[in-house]
Amino acid sequence: MTYCVGILVRDGLVMIADTRTNAGLDNIATYRKLHVFERPGDRVVAIASSGNLAITQSVLSLVSEGLENPETGEIETLMEMPTLFRTAQFVGRAIREVYRIDGRALEQSANSFDVTMLVGGQIAGGRLRMFMVYRAGNFIEATEDTPYLQIGEHKYGKPILDRAATYDTTLQDALKLGLISMDSTMRSNLSVGLPIDTLMVRRDAIRSSLRHRIDSYDPYFRDLRDRWSRALRDAHLAIPEPPYGEV
Amino acid sequence: MTYCVGILVRDGLVMIADTRTNAGLDNIATYRKLHVFERPGDRVVAIASSGNLAITQSVLSLVSEGLENPETGEIETLMEMPTLFRTAQFVGRAIREVYRIDGRALEQSANSFDVTMLVGGQIAGGRLRMFMVYRAGNFIEATEDTPYLQIGEHKYGKPILDRAATYDTTLQDALKLGLISMDSTMRSNLSVGLPIDTLMVRRDAIRSSLRHRIDSYDPYFRDLRDRWSRALRDAHLAIPEPPYGEV
Repeated sequence: MTYCVGILVRDGLVMIADTRTNAGLDNIATYRKLHVFERPGDRVVAIASSGNLAITQSVLSLVSEGLENPETGEIETLMEMPTLFRTAQFVGRAIREVYRIDGRALEQSANSFDVTMLVGGQIAGGRLRMFMVYRAGNFIEATEDTPYLQIGEHKYGKPILDRAATYDTTLQDALKLGLISMDSTMRSNLSVGLPIDTLMVRRDAIRSSLRHRIDSYDPYFRDLRDRWSRALRDAHLAIPEPPYGEV
Repeated sequence: MTYCVGILVRDGLVMIADTRTNAGLDNIATYRKLHVFERPGDRVVAIASSGNLAITQSVLSLVSEGLENPETGEIETLMEMPTLFRTAQFVGRAIREVYRIDGRALEQSANSFDVTMLVGGQIAGGRLRMFMVYRAGNFIEATEDTPYLQIGEHKYGKPILDRAATYDTTLQDALKLGLISMDSTMRSNLSVGLPIDTLMVRRDAIRSSLRHRIDSYDPYFRDLRDRWSRALRDAHLAIPEPPYGEV
């Protein structure tokens, strides 16, 4: 399983992804799911991926090595895309290309063609944006009303985002919220696990301001988990007892 | 959709169920999903149900009106079951009977045979127990290690239970935790909704000590929701900012 979340706020963008993959419960491994394509001043684009690892790796290879533009016949890479919208389209096209090559064989062996990606970042001259690209290659965009997007095991970590993540959340708070959301997911689903990759991009900086991997020894994340647990416990204890009269 | 949760603690049992049903997003209705069969001093048995409403209603009718015992040929009802284990078996048998009658036709019309039930309570001479009965009629039991069972839309409300619900939780706290869990679910899934039915059974009382319906005007539940929201907001704000140096 996988959990990745991106939060797009007024000040910038935070993206967080776990690294656990599993082929059955007895085959667990660690793979990076958050990939950053960066040339400071020109672009910073991050792709977070969930789904079948063979598919997501193929898509990343295609967008890095190049994919033929069906209209011009030229080979294009992600680093040449002029806008983030075109980047999301390009990732969608790469997914369709992998489907063309592998889709039927996967389905014949009773595997579904399962892939979803977050594509976020900013290219010089354009806006900071974030998209969620579906397996069909189509996509939606995060907006001021709903500033976050999740892929993979999204339910456990959604309540805190529903309550607290707004477009006016500060970038540091967005990172905290994302980590709390990740913590909730890891506690309830063993197939989402450490280390966690994080990325922070300030709006209009056109480069990442933070790329950090959090492992099980990370003192800040350990402290965050402890504090959050304690706060939840204290909060529920502080709520008065139900007044419904027992008979 | 549906969310029901039962928490079995040292002091007793709490069961909570929402009442929203939907056939598509444009057809919403209110139906009781928590049914209590009670004869004080003899037994208190509660059934919470999720899944296809036609199936769950049929199962409840069968266990109330009576179902033939295949070994003796006699018609039995839930109120005659000698133990809670036998009660869970009986509910499982009723599910299989409904499957026998309706299962194939449902599947032919592309509906799955979808039903899961919680069966909790105590019968004089026996222990307080709680079971989760699956669509196949088989079941598992809540234990001291994992004292809660959930059916329906279970993920949003699971983190708080994972963190705080233990066998040593007091009965009042278990009710609070169940309501917090229900609140988290209702916030993230519109198809789970008020009013909420609650039941509390003290161990060895052999009767319910609380049967209460919470509607949208319930001042305690409104206060609980406000306090919980505020506590979560305060908790995340109280966590220090991430120390990862920005570049």
